[in-house]
Amino acid sequence: MQVRHVIELVGFDGDDTLWHSEGYYQSAHGEFERIVGNYIDLANVRLHDRLLETERRNIRLFGYGAKGMTLSMLESAIEMTESRISATDLHRIIEIGKQVLAHPVELLPGIRAAVEAVAARQRVVLITKGDLFHQEQKVASSGLADLFHRIEIVSEKDDRAYRRVLGECEVSPQHFAMVGNSLRSDIAPVVQLGGWGVYMPYHVTWAHEKDTDFVDSASRVVQVEEPRGIARAVEELQARAAA
Amino acid sequence: MQVRHVIELVGFDGDDTLWHSEGYYQSAHGEFERIVGNYIDLANVRLHDRLLETERRNIRLFGYGAKGMTLSMLESAIEMTESRISATDLHRIIEIGKQVLAHPVELLPGIRAAVEAVAARQRVVLITKGDLFHQEQKVASSGLADLFHRIEIVSEKDDRAYRRVLGECEVSPQHFAMVGNSLRSDIAPVVQLGGWGVYMPYHVTWAHEKDTDFVDSASRVVQVEEPRGIARAVEELQARAAA
Repeated sequence: MQVRHVIELVGFDGDDTLWHSEGYYQSAHGEFERIVGNYIDLANVRLHDRLLETERRNIRLFGYGAKGMTLSMLESAIEMTESRISATDLHRIIEIGKQVLAHPVELLPGIRAAVEAVAARQRVVLITKGDLFHQEQKVASSGLADLFHRIEIVSEKDDRAYRRVLGECEVSPQHFAMVGNSLRSDIAPVVQLGGWGVYMPYHVTWAHEKDTDFVDSASRVVQVEEPRGIARAVEELQARAAA
Repeated sequence: MQVRHVIELVGFDGDDTLWHSEGYYQSAHGEFERIVGNYIDLANVRLHDRLLETERRNIRLFGYGAKGMTLSMLESAIEMTESRISATDLHRIIEIGKQVLAHPVELLPGIRAAVEAVAARQRVVLITKGDLFHQEQKVASSGLADLFHRIEIVSEKDDRAYRRVLGECEVSPQHFAMVGNSLRSDIAPVVQLGGWGVYMPYHVTWAHEKDTDFVDSASRVVQVEEPRGIARAVEELQARAAA
């Protein structure tokens, strides 16, 4: 029995799947630590953990993205230095955040060809998380927008968000595969709904995205190391789905 | 000749149309001015103009919303005090921003009944601008989400955004009316596309929303003073459209 196009729709994540992102955030954190390190003894304070703690606490108010990160960096810096930090240094931290918002969009090598290869067989959608304004700018700068049937910017990539997007595309989860670098946001919720995943780890992962205990017990995920493997991985899932 | 439902779809703005918003921003500005006023002679500096200038400059990087406003307030405060402002006072400004993000959602009196009255005859959609995360939270807290056929959170309310939303709703502009408090964002782009407007001014208007030279030369707009007038205004537009 041949089943054609069991997977009808393929979603692509944006940050660190289509274009580089996390590196900009990590170098922002590095600059932040250098500034705050002038005020406190770094041997005694786990600066990065303290910042993460502030970010976690603020995420229910700020959501994801560079503006929230900048506000959390400012707050952490003030708290950790017990308000000794100068306005000049706080201004530098604002500038760090602006640099993250203004960084050029650099595509992962081979990603355009990879999206085109998938789009030749399935409908493709971009499903990206974070700040609406910043993500729209990145989508526009990427030059990839025209490849996608739809572009969805969501505030959280959970079951609910995927169910809504799939509903609007009129596709049920078993006909959907998601391509992304985050097990927590791209793979786990889709597999839990009954869908499929192409997991392409990025060389760095944001600490918050590591919060997952996802295990692929149903062989619904194929891991690839680089964009050129994506189309083949979707074919592999197609074959499994049809089996 | 009787034409039924010439207006098929009615859009509602969120901030200051469904729920109070601008007042929170204005009281944030007031608190900001009190803090910065401790450092500089307010008689010589037009504090509010300086903040607006910073916001305008930053909007292409930050977009709309309370997080961007907070970052602009911090930057203005540092620049205007020539970096003399203390970290403690800058922390207070961060708290002002958090209060805006966390404020309770208070509906305009009579707005639920007004939306219900329109929804009894036309499909209704919510089209709101700003920070995705904050707007989603406000929509959820408002308790109005279930009244709307669709909810669209956009980064800018321009021709392009309305054209996209109308495309997704499969309605052409001449069958669409938008209800809102901003001539610039809710009324002008819709009328320019060939649609209709119900303009309900709010008692305060954000300075940026005043940037418009819109004049309703085609009688495509009805002004109402309060929510209870909305359904009748839509009927009035209906009659004009059918004439």
